[in-house]
Amino acid sequence: MTTASDTPALNIALLGGGTVGSQVARILTENADALTQRIGTRLNLTKILVRNPQATRDYELPTEYYTDDVDEVFEGADIVVELMGGIDPARELVLRAINQGASVVTGNKALLATHGNELYEAAAEAGVQLSFEASVGGAIPILRPLRDSLSGDKITRIMGIVNGTTNYILDEMDSTGASFNDALAEAQRLGYAEADPTADVGGADAAAKAAILAHLAFHSPFTLDQVYTEGIAEISDLDHKAAADAGYVIKLLAIVEELDDPAGVVLRVHPTLLPREHPLAAVRGAYNAVFVEAENAGELMFYGPGAGGAATASAVMGDVTSIAKRKLRGGPGRTHTARRELECLDIGEATTRYMVVVRAADASGVLAKVAGTFAEHNVSIKSMNQTPDQDSNDERQTALLAFVTHRAKEAQLAKTLEATKQLDVVDEVLSVMRVEGK
Amino acid sequence: MTTASDTPALNIALLGGGTVGSQVARILTENADALTQRIGTRLNLTKILVRNPQATRDYELPTEYYTDDVDEVFEGADIVVELMGGIDPARELVLRAINQGASVVTGNKALLATHGNELYEAAAEAGVQLSFEASVGGAIPILRPLRDSLSGDKITRIMGIVNGTTNYILDEMDSTGASFNDALAEAQRLGYAEADPTADVGGADAAAKAAILAHLAFHSPFTLDQVYTEGIAEISDLDHKAAADAGYVIKLLAIVEELDDPAGVVLRVHPTLLPREHPLAAVRGAYNAVFVEAENAGELMFYGPGAGGAATASAVMGDVTSIAKRKLRGGPGRTHTARRELECLDIGEATTRYMVVVRAADASGVLAKVAGTFAEHNVSIKSMNQTPDQDSNDERQTALLAFVTHRAKEAQLAKTLEATKQLDVVDEVLSVMRVEGK
Ligand SMILES: NC(=O)c1ccc[n+]([C@@H]2O[C@H](COP(=O)([O-])OP(=O)(O)OC[C@H]3O[C@@H](n4cnc5c(N)ncnc54)[C@H](OP(=O)(O)O)[C@@H]3O)[C@@H](O)[C@H]2O)c1
Ligand SMILES: NC(=O)c1ccc[n+]([C@@H]2O[C@H](COP(=O)([O-])OP(=O)(O)OC[C@H]3O[C@@H](n4cnc5c(N)ncnc54)[C@H](OP(=O)(O)O)[C@@H]3O)[C@@H](O)[C@H]2O)c1
Repeated sequence: MTTASDTPALNIALLGGGTVGSQVARILTENADALTQRIGTRLNLTKILVRNPQATRDYELPTEYYTDDVDEVFEGADIVVELMGGIDPARELVLRAINQGASVVTGNKALLATHGNELYEAAAEAGVQLSFEASVGGAIPILRPLRDSLSGDKITRIMGIVNGTTNYILDEMDSTGASFNDALAEAQRLGYAEADPTADVGGADAAAKAAILAHLAFHSPFTLDQVYTEGIAEISDLDHKAAADAGYVIKLLAIVEELDDPAGVVLRVHPTLLPREHPLAAVRGAYNAVFVEAENAGELMFYGPGAGGAATASAVMGDVTSIAKRKLRGGPGRTHTARRELECLDIGEATTRYMVVVRAADASGVLAKVAGTFAEHNVSIKSMNQTPDQDSNDERQTALLAFVTHRAKEAQLAKTLEATKQLDVVDEVLSVMRVEGK
Repeated sequence: MTTASDTPALNIALLGGGTVGSQVARILTENADALTQRIGTRLNLTKILVRNPQATRDYELPTEYYTDDVDEVFEGADIVVELMGGIDPARELVLRAINQGASVVTGNKALLATHGNELYEAAAEAGVQLSFEASVGGAIPILRPLRDSLSGDKITRIMGIVNGTTNYILDEMDSTGASFNDALAEAQRLGYAEADPTADVGGADAAAKAAILAHLAFHSPFTLDQVYTEGIAEISDLDHKAAADAGYVIKLLAIVEELDDPAGVVLRVHPTLLPREHPLAAVRGAYNAVFVEAENAGELMFYGPGAGGAATASAVMGDVTSIAKRKLRGGPGRTHTARRELECLDIGEATTRYMVVVRAADASGVLAKVAGTFAEHNVSIKSMNQTPDQDSNDERQTALLAFVTHRAKEAQLAKTLEATKQLDVVDEVLSVMRVEGK
């Protein structure tokens, strides 16, 4: 066994010492000996860039570690760990690290989903590593397995619960019957939701992760703005009831898939109904899970805590350790530059199942008319369930009809709904939700 | 982009062309172009070693591919893929491949759990790769994430459903009320269980996987014979009923964990009760899942098909592709030689919870006596449920008392049970099962 003293220590500079950064600092200092033994050299935490070097912090280190001087942080750094978040100045600092020949580890999904390609190419050109396991699914090892373990297979589709805040809210609503606002307030109280929950609730955070997952799965560059995105704030009580009545649970899923005809990918984030038996349906609270479909492997799922300082720091440390080991072994590292140029298709090309709830006259022949309209547009109905309408009145007796369809294109469904609304027997289309799983 | 024609093809030799081997051959030939594009060089399937080169096979290749001539198979091989199973001649052939400088991919858990250390050391010495993702959990990427993604964390415990046959049988018994024999027959009909199901039902297959998981998690060499093993054939109807009544499901788990006091690991395979809300409890049919607890990452789970030709071939191809990429990039590969020498502790040191069902006199004071005996031995009771005894008769009224304990050492429980049996109010200890999860 080579002893650690044979090889020079590697200098680790941290950009950011907040929720995740402070836990990375803790692991680097508390577990220094174990890490040295595991890697074969010492990881030497040099400096931590923060806005306010004097602030009191969760994990207390001697104040010499903290600085707001960028030059000081970069001095002699072999590996730069970016955990400050946001685009500016994170983007310039990551590029600076790459250009000085340091490898970079980041958990910054917003940065990668907007400027990823620029960074991957800069890293490849400079011959340094850029790793970002923590950017999707927190502690869950998902990016590396997609890249390495499934490298001999063809990934066809990924569906992920990649935002813990929204999963917590939806799970609370489903299991306790809480309202959206109460569930959100509870999530904020528990620290699962930010004071400004827009990025989580509106789906932007999940969309950034969808772009990163698609990049890894399909080897093409994608950005956040290519992801069709619907959040969870518009889910109505009737949506929840209709889903539960039919044995479904509502999850906010990031779905990325490759299509053959037309060739390309569809990237989307939206509330989705899943049968209660689906493995993703069992993901409770703020947990995350990524469900992967591959041609040969079949259906895989990766589950774990999607956030939290220590958990996310574990993923960061996995990247740091791998980079450190590779630096010792020598040889060039992996690159993430795009190998293909797949087209990103319009949401209209996405194929999924739907649940459609309409208010219609409670009379014979109504089902035939609605079903006929669906059939005309080649949307085939898998099941129908009729329930009495609470709002029905004496003037005109109405009923609620909940249809679940087989798979059809979004564009076809849109036309079907247009035509359905024109039917004289149909008062209103009350709910339209996408359905996945068998 | 470098073109594939720049670099020489890599020769792949297959040892075994059965369930998994034939699917590896299919992927190598059918997906040759995609693999070439992905890797940067061509993977050239040279020969397939089989017992009977003339046999008709699931996936038909020109007969020139098949041979029973070992020398012919090894000629010019850069990567040798061992999918024949068994110890002999697999062991000699893997060593021969290593000694001729070829890297090896295998799915052979029996071989690794008995002679792994010899092979890891031979590979390290020869400077070749030895990869075995397919040996645990079929298609599930689990070994590489343990090794790479969690390399900056400390794994404390792994609990795995790593045998699809027994999970299928237990799930059938739980969900349909089938008897063990009927469920086994059904598993055989569906091809999930072998004609001779001993290795699956008796736990030996899971024990081999436990040894491999422990090696990867704790960086120490372990063998199959160090794993305490109980199968599922002895689970009684009363066990099933008591588990279900208390809200548990029975799973055959492979559990490996590191203890501090005394320092060492405990490796065990046995039927285990899990609360129905536990992520592993939702693993249905022949699926596998591995639940990992790590100091910082918290609780992770990896889920997917644990067997099947194509699924297992996906894991094999992940290893082949990684080795091929590394060969192109240059630089030495990873080794699996043990870094530590952890002691393997007796099952008596294992700490778990228990469900104990006793038949006792249906009289006041009985609970106090039994609880007192447990307390004397420092086994603390978490819950108790009393049900009428069907076999109770007029002579002496009896009842069934089901206790669930807090965590205690196996050795402590053994003493507790001895003392409980001596109590005059206790007729019989009817069932003792281990319980995991919160
Ligand atoms: N939190 C999670 O569970 C989680 C999970 C997965 C991924 N991530 C990602 O990890 C990154 C970090 O998240 P976090 O939760 O740790 O963030 P955080 O708690 O807000 O910490 C940010 C840190 O960066 C420093 N910083 C921010 N802007 C700076 C600037 N312009 N100059 C110097 N220092 C600056 C802050 O300094 P002060 O301390 O002085 O304010 C703070 O230490 C983000 O990209 C996030 O998306 C987080
Ligand atoms: N099946 C699964 O789902 C699965 C999952 C995970 C891991 N694995 C592991 O993968 C390995 C292969 O499993 P499998 O199910 O593919 O086995 P299999 O169907 O029994 O195939 C074994 C192959 O090896 C050949 N073979 C066996 N002994 C030989 C010998 N002495 N000389 C020459 N050829 C010999 C056989 O030749 P013939 O065809 O001429 O008989 C056959 O082609 C095993 O280690 C198994 O534990 C299997």
